[in-house]
Amino acid sequence: MTTVGILGGGQLARMLALSGAPLGLRFLVMDTEADACAGQFAPLLVGDYRDEAALAEFASRVDVATFDFENVPAESAEWLAQRIPVFPNPRALAVAQDRMVEKSLFRRLGIPVGEFAAVSARTELEAEVARIGGPCILKTRRLGYDGKGQFRIRTAADIEAAWQALGEQASSVGLIVEAFIPFERELSVVAVRGRDGEFRTWPLTENWHVDGVLSASLAPATVDAALAQSAFGHARKLAEALDYVGVFALELFYRDGQLLANEMAPRVHNSGHWTIEGAETSQFQNHLRAVLGLPLGATDTLGHACMLNWIGAMPDAAAVLNQAGGHWHDYGKQPRAGRKVGHATLRADNPTGLAQALQQAGDALGRQAQVAPVVGRLLT
Amino acid sequence: MTTVGILGGGQLARMLALSGAPLGLRFLVMDTEADACAGQFAPLLVGDYRDEAALAEFASRVDVATFDFENVPAESAEWLAQRIPVFPNPRALAVAQDRMVEKSLFRRLGIPVGEFAAVSARTELEAEVARIGGPCILKTRRLGYDGKGQFRIRTAADIEAAWQALGEQASSVGLIVEAFIPFERELSVVAVRGRDGEFRTWPLTENWHVDGVLSASLAPATVDAALAQSAFGHARKLAEALDYVGVFALELFYRDGQLLANEMAPRVHNSGHWTIEGAETSQFQNHLRAVLGLPLGATDTLGHACMLNWIGAMPDAAAVLNQAGGHWHDYGKQPRAGRKVGHATLRADNPTGLAQALQQAGDALGRQAQVAPVVGRLLT
Ligand SMILES: Nc1ncnc2c1ncn2[C@@H]1O[C@H](COP(=O)(O)OP(=O)(O)OP(=O)(O)O)[C@@H](O)[C@H]1O
Ligand SMILES: Nc1ncnc2c1ncn2[C@@H]1O[C@H](COP(=O)(O)OP(=O)(O)OP(=O)(O)O)[C@@H](O)[C@H]1O
Repeated sequence: MTTVGILGGGQLARMLALSGAPLGLRFLVMDTEADACAGQFAPLLVGDYRDEAALAEFASRVDVATFDFENVPAESAEWLAQRIPVFPNPRALAVAQDRMVEKSLFRRLGIPVGEFAAVSARTELEAEVARIGGPCILKTRRLGYDGKGQFRIRTAADIEAAWQALGEQASSVGLIVEAFIPFERELSVVAVRGRDGEFRTWPLTENWHVDGVLSASLAPATVDAALAQSAFGHARKLAEALDYVGVFALELFYRDGQLLANEMAPRVHNSGHWTIEGAETSQFQNHLRAVLGLPLGATDTLGHACMLNWIGAMPDAAAVLNQAGGHWHDYGKQPRAGRKVGHATLRADNPTGLAQALQQAGDALGRQAQVAPVVGRLLT
Repeated sequence: MTTVGILGGGQLARMLALSGAPLGLRFLVMDTEADACAGQFAPLLVGDYRDEAALAEFASRVDVATFDFENVPAESAEWLAQRIPVFPNPRALAVAQDRMVEKSLFRRLGIPVGEFAAVSARTELEAEVARIGGPCILKTRRLGYDGKGQFRIRTAADIEAAWQALGEQASSVGLIVEAFIPFERELSVVAVRGRDGEFRTWPLTENWHVDGVLSASLAPATVDAALAQSAFGHARKLAEALDYVGVFALELFYRDGQLLANEMAPRVHNSGHWTIEGAETSQFQNHLRAVLGLPLGATDTLGHACMLNWIGAMPDAAAVLNQAGGHWHDYGKQPRAGRKVGHATLRADNPTGLAQALQQAGDALGRQAQVAPVVGRLLT
C-alpha cells in the first residue's frame, strides 16, 4: 500500500486523490486550513509548511510527496526531500517560484521570452521601462497567482502608481518588470515527464483569462502542427533541464506566428482540467503515474473539449448537465469572491458540436460572454 | 450541500463516491465491516443493517440513500424509506432479492424467461426436474451472488447431491429450480431511469463468467441492432413496472437468436464498470444523477471497451498501464480467494485495436485464457 503525500489541499489535491484512488493509492493531504476541500476525500493534516514537527509527521506517514500548491517554501521542500522522495524536485519548484529565475532559465535554454528585468528600486524601474519601450507590467517575482501582484504600466506616467502599489514588496518577494505582450492568443503546453525521463504532452490548449484569472480553455487548440511542435520542444527542454518529474504547464503567448514563454506551473494546471473527460489519461492520473514511476498513460484527446472555470460561486449545474457531453466539477468549497470554486467541461466529437453545446450552455447560464471567444474560435 | 448515504461499502460504493465527488456531493457509507474499502474515500458508519439505532444515525446524517449491496434487508430499506428518500425504492429491491418473485415478474411483463419453479421439498424438486426436462440448476431464492448457492442438475441422478447441498436452505432463503440454458452468449443491459421517468441504456454488453463469477465484459456487444432494441425494451418495461430510479442491470442469455432473462441487479453492476472510461457518462455518475433528480448524462460509448475482473489478488499493473488505453482499478481490498479485488478496462477506437491491446495485456499477465474469448469475439 502506497501513500502519496500532497502539500496543499485545494482542488488540485482533491482531483489528484480522486484520480489516484483507482491506482490503489492512499493519500495524505497537508494544508494550513482545516476546511481545505481535498480533505473531503482524503485524510488531512492541518499544519504550517514551515513547522518542522508537522512536516516530520507528514513525512512519517507518506511514501512519496508532491504538490498541489506551488508556493510551499523551498526550504520545506528541501527538508522533506532529504527524508522521502519528492517530485517534482525542490529545485524545479524553486525555479518556478521566482519569475526572474524562471525567465532567465527560459532565455538560457533558448526558449523565446519577452523583455524582462529585475528591479529593486524606483529608479531602476524607470530605466527598465525606458529601455524596454512601450507598455510593461510590473510583477512580484514570488507568490503571485491568478494575476495578483501585477500592475500594468502603459506609459511612463504610470510608474508612480505602479511603485505605489508594489514598490514596498521589492525587498520581500522582489519585483520584475516585463514587456507587455499584445498577444493574439494565450496557449499552454500541459506535459508530463516520468521518473525514467519519458516525456509526453497533451495537445496544445488555448486559454482565455478574465481579470488575470483563467476563464476558459479549449483543446486541442486550433493552431498549426509546426507551432505545436515548437511549443512541445520548449516544454521538453525545460523539463529536461530541471530533471522534472510529474505534470507541469508552460504558458505561452502567441503573436505574429511567434511563441513567447510567460511562465511555468510546477504542478497539474487549471488549463489541463479538460483532460479528465477529454483525454485518454487525465493530467491527474499521469502526474501520479509519473511520481510513482508507473508507465505513463496515453495523452491523446477524445474529441474536442472546453473547460469553463467557475469563479466566486457555482452556477446552476443543470445547464451543463443537460448537454450530452457536459461534465460538472464542484470542488466543495465555500463561495467567495474571486475564488476558483469549480469548473465544467464540455466534450464533443467535433468542433461544431462543441460550439453548439457551449452556446446552449452559455445561454442557459446567462454566461454568453464566457463562451463567446471559444465559440468564435471553433467556428472560424 | 447534499450527503448521499450508501448502504454497503464495497467497490461499488467506492466508485460511486469517487464519481459523485465532482458533483459536489458528500457521502456516508454504512457497512458491517470496519475495513470496507469505500471507507478509504468516504466517511464510514460501521453497523448492522438490522440495528435500528445505527439506521437512525445513518438517516440523520444523509439526505438521500441508495445501495451498494442488494441484500440489505427489505425491512431496513422500508424503515429508512419512511424517513428519507431511498432510491431505488424498497419494493424494487425486494423483487430483485428473490429470484422467484423476480422471474415471476419477468414472465408477467412478457419478458422471455426459461422454465422455473419454486421448490420447498425434495419431492417437489424431483417433480419439477421431470417437468422441465433436461439439465436444471437448483438455486437459493435469496442471498446468492457470484454463482454461490447454486447446484447443477445434469440428470435425475444429481438430485440427491443437489438436495444434500442446498435442501436445508429451503426453509430459510427458499429454493428455485431453473432450466439450464445452453446459451451461446451472456449479455447485459445496464440502464438508468431518472426520478422523472427518463430512461437510458448504455450499449448492450457481452459478459463471460468463470466459475459463476464475471471474468470479462465487452461493450458494445457485437449483436444486431434489433436484438439490442428488444433487450432495451425488456429493461424499460421492468424499470417502469418497478418505478425504478437509478442504475440497474438486466442479465440475459442469448440462444438461437432469442433472449431469455436471467436476473436483474438493482444497483450499479460489474458489467457496467467499463463505462468509467468507455462511455460519455459512467454508470456511477448517472446513478447519482438519477437518485438526485439531476439530468441524466449521455450513455454513448467512446470507442470500444473491455473490462477484465481481478479475482483473489491484483496482478501486475504495468502490463495494463503500458497499453495506450489501459486503465487500472484497484479497490484497495485485502487479497482473498474468490474476492473481487479490482478490474482493468482497455479502451480503443476500434475493435481491432482493442483485440490487439487485450492480446498484449493478456500475454504480459500470463492470462491468455481470460482475454481469449473476448479477442475471439472482436476478430470475428
Ligand atoms: N507580459 C505580459 N504581457 C501580456 N499579458 C500578460 C503578461 N503577463 C501577464 N499577462 C496576463 O495576465 C495573466 C496572468 O499573468 P501571469 O500568468 O503572469 O500571472 P499569475 O498570477 O502567475 O497567473 P496564473 O495563476 O494564472 O498562472 C496572463 O495569463 C496574461 O493574460
Ligand atoms: N439457468 C441457467 N442456465 C445456464 N447458466 C446459468 C443459469 N443460471 C446461472 N447460470 C450461470 O451462472 C452465472 C451466475 O448465475 P446467476 O446470475 O444466477 O447468479 P448470481 O450468484 O446472482 O451471480 P451474479 O452475482 O454474477 O449476479 C450466470 O451468469 C451463468 O453463467
